[in-house]
Amino acid sequence: MAESTDETPTLVPAKLVPLGITLAVGIVFWFIPPPEGVKQEAWHLLAIFVATIVGIIAKPLPMGAVALIGVAATALTGTLSIKDALSGFGVPTIWLIGVAFFVSRAIIKTGLGARIALNFMKVLGKKTLGLSYGLGLADLVLAPAMPSNTARAGGVLMPLLRSVSLAYQSDPNEGTQRRVGAFMMLNAFQINIITSAMFMTAMAANPLAARLAGDAGVEITWGQWFLAALVPGIVSLILIPLFVYKVYAPEVKETPQAAQLAVDELKKMGAVKPAEWITLGVIGLLLVLWIFGKTLGVHSTTAALVGLSVLLLGGVLTWKDILNEKGAWDTIVWFAALVMMATQLNKLGFIPWFGEAVGAQVQGLAWTTAFLILGLVYFYSHYMFASQTAHISAMYAPFLAVAISVGTPAVLAALVLAYFSNLFSSLTHYANGPAPVVFGTNYVSMGAWWGVGGAVSVLNILIWVGVGAVWWNIIGLM
Amino acid sequence: MAESTDETPTLVPAKLVPLGITLAVGIVFWFIPPPEGVKQEAWHLLAIFVATIVGIIAKPLPMGAVALIGVAATALTGTLSIKDALSGFGVPTIWLIGVAFFVSRAIIKTGLGARIALNFMKVLGKKTLGLSYGLGLADLVLAPAMPSNTARAGGVLMPLLRSVSLAYQSDPNEGTQRRVGAFMMLNAFQINIITSAMFMTAMAANPLAARLAGDAGVEITWGQWFLAALVPGIVSLILIPLFVYKVYAPEVKETPQAAQLAVDELKKMGAVKPAEWITLGVIGLLLVLWIFGKTLGVHSTTAALVGLSVLLLGGVLTWKDILNEKGAWDTIVWFAALVMMATQLNKLGFIPWFGEAVGAQVQGLAWTTAFLILGLVYFYSHYMFASQTAHISAMYAPFLAVAISVGTPAVLAALVLAYFSNLFSSLTHYANGPAPVVFGTNYVSMGAWWGVGGAVSVLNILIWVGVGAVWWNIIGLM
Repeated sequence: MAESTDETPTLVPAKLVPLGITLAVGIVFWFIPPPEGVKQEAWHLLAIFVATIVGIIAKPLPMGAVALIGVAATALTGTLSIKDALSGFGVPTIWLIGVAFFVSRAIIKTGLGARIALNFMKVLGKKTLGLSYGLGLADLVLAPAMPSNTARAGGVLMPLLRSVSLAYQSDPNEGTQRRVGAFMMLNAFQINIITSAMFMTAMAANPLAARLAGDAGVEITWGQWFLAALVPGIVSLILIPLFVYKVYAPEVKETPQAAQLAVDELKKMGAVKPAEWITLGVIGLLLVLWIFGKTLGVHSTTAALVGLSVLLLGGVLTWKDILNEKGAWDTIVWFAALVMMATQLNKLGFIPWFGEAVGAQVQGLAWTTAFLILGLVYFYSHYMFASQTAHISAMYAPFLAVAISVGTPAVLAALVLAYFSNLFSSLTHYANGPAPVVFGTNYVSMGAWWGVGGAVSVLNILIWVGVGAVWWNIIGLM
Repeated sequence: MAESTDETPTLVPAKLVPLGITLAVGIVFWFIPPPEGVKQEAWHLLAIFVATIVGIIAKPLPMGAVALIGVAATALTGTLSIKDALSGFGVPTIWLIGVAFFVSRAIIKTGLGARIALNFMKVLGKKTLGLSYGLGLADLVLAPAMPSNTARAGGVLMPLLRSVSLAYQSDPNEGTQRRVGAFMMLNAFQINIITSAMFMTAMAANPLAARLAGDAGVEITWGQWFLAALVPGIVSLILIPLFVYKVYAPEVKETPQAAQLAVDELKKMGAVKPAEWITLGVIGLLLVLWIFGKTLGVHSTTAALVGLSVLLLGGVLTWKDILNEKGAWDTIVWFAALVMMATQLNKLGFIPWFGEAVGAQVQGLAWTTAFLILGLVYFYSHYMFASQTAHISAMYAPFLAVAISVGTPAVLAALVLAYFSNLFSSLTHYANGPAPVVFGTNYVSMGAWWGVGGAVSVLNILIWVGVGAVWWNIIGLM
């Protein structure tokens, strides 16, 4: 009877208060009569969608479970056909991110991620500031093929950050966190946010924004996303660490031991293994296919599937690795559910109606002013969210619709809101996936986190809107 | 660097000879000019499809990996758009089976499956034949909510079969396998095949057959499948154990200790736990919704999602359990890939063309004769397959097309081929998932397995075609 008793079947039911709130919101919305111009079924779907978002925030159950129950609700109530309810699972964007998760497993499994970081550390690691740039570059290199920003910050970089900190006797348990660790951790977190903004595949919910834009008639390719982010992204990557270094300086400014530590670790790792070469080759292939996909006629998801096929055929990843990659399956489920709801809300006419209705209120303003206000509201409302996904799901589509209705160039609006969907994570210690991981090391106080984060947010907005505007003019987006 | 070194990155590449065969078949097909009446793209898709099936049989990599690479090939070659290539993931049938896998986890996790089997054992277990009927009934009760026939036979029943066998000193290591174990094991295997045939959700690839039928314009509901299988299924469940008992009798015919063992185990398990009650309630709900779904207007997949929602909300299953259920994710991937290819082959006109072309060859025959020949060829060609899925994927759609084109009533043809897709598993020790598990216990010799299996196959065909024909006349299928 081995199989029946190896897990104790204790019940872990949904948390009642969050569940009550979620259901109450859904039910109240459901029975409110829809405003004029909104179909009954669109309104019912909105009720389920809002309840799902509330559920993702209030967490009666983990996000994936809430999303799946939301899907069940759309079908059970007859709001959507079961075919429409499950249509999200066939959306290529979902599989772009799912497959990218699988590919990133190879980066971790083969040790390639650690090796890349160690090499940057070896070359740039003699001073604290150089070290932080080195690890930032590692993050940047890994970002396009690692859509879990948490895996990049927590899985690849965190062990190195800890090793270096402890090598310099910087330990929150000893009250010495400010020697090296506090600056390094907070800085790595802020850099991770910038790299996440720069590639469509650098953060799990980025393609969600792209898909929502697609629903509004604005198709954004991987290359387009990258090109527009390139210049403001690089400027941010240069300036933000400098800024953090100024306002939250480490006590120890020279770190020769870090460079030495990297040399020792690299020696331990030995020569680059075949599995690492294959993975590196696949990443190179992916970058080429992603950047030049439009010219080559290869869809970004096709490219990802081809890369994964190579990793499977070459034996870098086994099929078991794929089935074990829970983060991917989790993401696929919640992603498919949210994309489906948002797409159907669009198809049923709700989002366009909302855009026009709100747009009409601000019709007097120039689009630049109107869009700036919209962008700032979108950005700073992230103080209220503990998840990028929840924030994007709830606000991206309606804000984009309003922005377009007041005359903002559509692609520009879609991209800026997408970049903001990452940059707003600088604000709090619960803003995104990596935040609690980094904050949980206790190196950075909450005051410093919020203070520096608030300042960085302003700086990032200035860079992305200022430098960005010039760049976007050059590449013809404005 | 914990994350980078916890797995040794040894390469486990695809097996070269099987890979070579798979690729060679695909490439040869690709460059053969299509016969008249078949579009070039349909032919190219056929080449990829055939290579995928060959790959599933030759196994250069596990089935899921082969299927996913097949999907990548359709998109990379431009044979299908990436949207079409991934469309399988949005098919409700896929999620019916995926979600049923999740639900069946609750049956195993809570111990409910073992408890049900033990209760039947307690009541019927005093004689060897009674015991085998008792465990057969347990299999029957669990079947509709456990689409992994391997989990039913291997996970729930096998531990009990082993315990009883050893309690009666029946052990292949001692040469005493024929005392009790050999009969019990072979019989349980044959019963499992019948219960798998009786419900659309009792075997992972059953909905694949249903979906392929749907592509040919024959929609089969869960209730229809069940109703048509009911009478021949029950007759088989009564007669087959009796037959196996006659031709492959156990030496020990009284098993009072088995009943006692069940009593002891049940005492150890204590009272029925809340988690078991909830699971039982969900199974009841599912059966009602599946049987009366058409009348109630609830799709079978919607029902499955609702059942899963209850298990999640009630805390019987955690979201982690869902993400850990690798069998489900595996099935979802290969299932979606195969359904997609078969559906597209239909849409591109290949399957109808094939049906008409072969149908024209046998146009002189009465449909009864023609269909009988088709059915027998379909059935006994399973000697060449080590997987129900591979067999169904390769042969179900074309055989159905031919059957319909010679005048067989469409629903009848679809159902009979679907039932045969389970019953043909009686033939060999590699016929389906449970076969190697049961055979691997070494209780049953290969000679006995093939001999009894061959005889059972004839008996099953006589029952399902003979009794079936009467029953299907009554319910208006013929």
